[in-house]
Amino acid sequence: MSAEQPPLIAAIEAGGTKFVCAVATGPDNIVDELTIATTNPKETIHAVMRFLSGAKAKHGPFAAIGVGSFGPVDLDPASKTFGFITTTPKHGWQHTDLVGPLKTQFKVPVGFDTDVNAAVFGEYMWGAGKGCDPLIYITVGTGIGGGVIVNGHLLHGLLHPEIGHLHVPQPSGEEALSKECQCPFHKSCMEGYASGPAIMRRWGKKASALPSDHPAWEEVSDVLAHGLVNLILTLSPRRIILGGGVMHQAHLLPLIQSKVARFLNGYLQLSEITRNTDTFIVAPGLGDRSGLLGALALGQGALRLKMKK
Amino acid sequence: MSAEQPPLIAAIEAGGTKFVCAVATGPDNIVDELTIATTNPKETIHAVMRFLSGAKAKHGPFAAIGVGSFGPVDLDPASKTFGFITTTPKHGWQHTDLVGPLKTQFKVPVGFDTDVNAAVFGEYMWGAGKGCDPLIYITVGTGIGGGVIVNGHLLHGLLHPEIGHLHVPQPSGEEALSKECQCPFHKSCMEGYASGPAIMRRWGKKASALPSDHPAWEEVSDVLAHGLVNLILTLSPRRIILGGGVMHQAHLLPLIQSKVARFLNGYLQLSEITRNTDTFIVAPGLGDRSGLLGALALGQGALRLKMKK
Repeated sequence: MSAEQPPLIAAIEAGGTKFVCAVATGPDNIVDELTIATTNPKETIHAVMRFLSGAKAKHGPFAAIGVGSFGPVDLDPASKTFGFITTTPKHGWQHTDLVGPLKTQFKVPVGFDTDVNAAVFGEYMWGAGKGCDPLIYITVGTGIGGGVIVNGHLLHGLLHPEIGHLHVPQPSGEEALSKECQCPFHKSCMEGYASGPAIMRRWGKKASALPSDHPAWEEVSDVLAHGLVNLILTLSPRRIILGGGVMHQAHLLPLIQSKVARFLNGYLQLSEITRNTDTFIVAPGLGDRSGLLGALALGQGALRLKMKK
Repeated sequence: MSAEQPPLIAAIEAGGTKFVCAVATGPDNIVDELTIATTNPKETIHAVMRFLSGAKAKHGPFAAIGVGSFGPVDLDPASKTFGFITTTPKHGWQHTDLVGPLKTQFKVPVGFDTDVNAAVFGEYMWGAGKGCDPLIYITVGTGIGGGVIVNGHLLHGLLHPEIGHLHVPQPSGEEALSKECQCPFHKSCMEGYASGPAIMRRWGKKASALPSDHPAWEEVSDVLAHGLVNLILTLSPRRIILGGGVMHQAHLLPLIQSKVARFLNGYLQLSEITRNTDTFIVAPGLGDRSGLLGALALGQGALRLKMKK
């Protein structure tokens, strides 16, 4: 390997449905990749380890690992459970140590954050969010989650953003089986109305099987637009990126764009909101790769941090 | 004046009801102060100018001015309308230049931000938010607004936080005259239910005249707690400070504290939220002086910025 070539980094996008693993020197040079179905922690983490060990044998050692994980996760480096998935509703995954096994086996720096913080970081570095700060990335899929960049840094605090559970006005449509949402914790939150499983339970069909004129879309777009309104009123972002499986229905993004403007109803006189919502609320620039490439960026970040020390 | 003494700064808290003006060398040494009723822009700004000119004649020149203003305001230094109050619902105050006249007359640096960003800055420097980052300050009064600190900086973006208009689930009580809120822009936003004037219109009495067991308080605390839930899920703050006239009703803060925990319903397993809400959601450390002292801090900041150049 020549001195100029950027170092090999391992990237793991740890999702509730699948783990995507790769080794790469940059977003345009992924040298190996594997998708693993998310089953139980033991089996899934074992499959990740096997892929990484194999990739190391084939392509040489990697200098760092980046992990973007579903959550909630513990991001406090001072905590005993740093690098754990904590109180997730995902069966069997509560209190799972993700970073520990990686550090023990590979002995390289590990950059760790939420899946959606990884995704917003990927989009900020190489995608639809370049130069946009504050920047929000939201995935609408198996769950709903969001990552946030403010002043060039991922937003952490007591914990990390948990945007999927934003409490919103109940949708106005009368067709749904229940006014209350499907979330086991809340009565009227985004994820409880607009995640893939919530749509399935509320309307009896998968999002991809619902025609574009189905009343479900009025409800889903209502709820997501109300959530976006709240994020705009709180973070004043320069761009919002909407990804995830539910957003693959192409009619959904324009519905959300127009409702955000309608719900704000002229309160914020900004052309981005009143006229140019199509460049303000956008699809990911990296397609479905935001999370994986974001994990790569987290790995690069962990390496830079080690170099500084 | 000795070389060690900190410089004299002028501070203006520009509110929808009153303008509080002071000249001070620090939070514990306010040498002059005047409260002016907010009438129309010409009259009010004239009264401010007269106070500042008088204070200058009496106490000597000030090195900078800090202004925290009701809004929305234009905070973009590159904008032609920087330092203006822009699309405010406050009658007569749309597109009012606040910073221009001050700069023209006094020829010193002017630090300018929203009233609530000033307040959160004041509380972060000297009040109940010392060392807490992210930090949120919310005032519940004539209007509802919030200021935010992230990574030691006031949160700006495309505009600035406009937290008062967060869209929340409609309150569950049946007693109110209308389910929809009082905001001229929105149907179910915090300010439209829980600001002083909204309470007056919804219940026919001032907040201070409603007994603590009046159903209005269930509604007001419902709405504010839902807003706080959304802020917690978005910004993951280390502390939230609630100020403003409506919060003077001492029974309101405990109601909100318990409802935030109830509405989150165990989703975030953090002791700050599940057990210690009384140190997580708190009253201002500076009482009603957060905004004024924050304006002082903004003035000090503007002076530091000038020194650096």
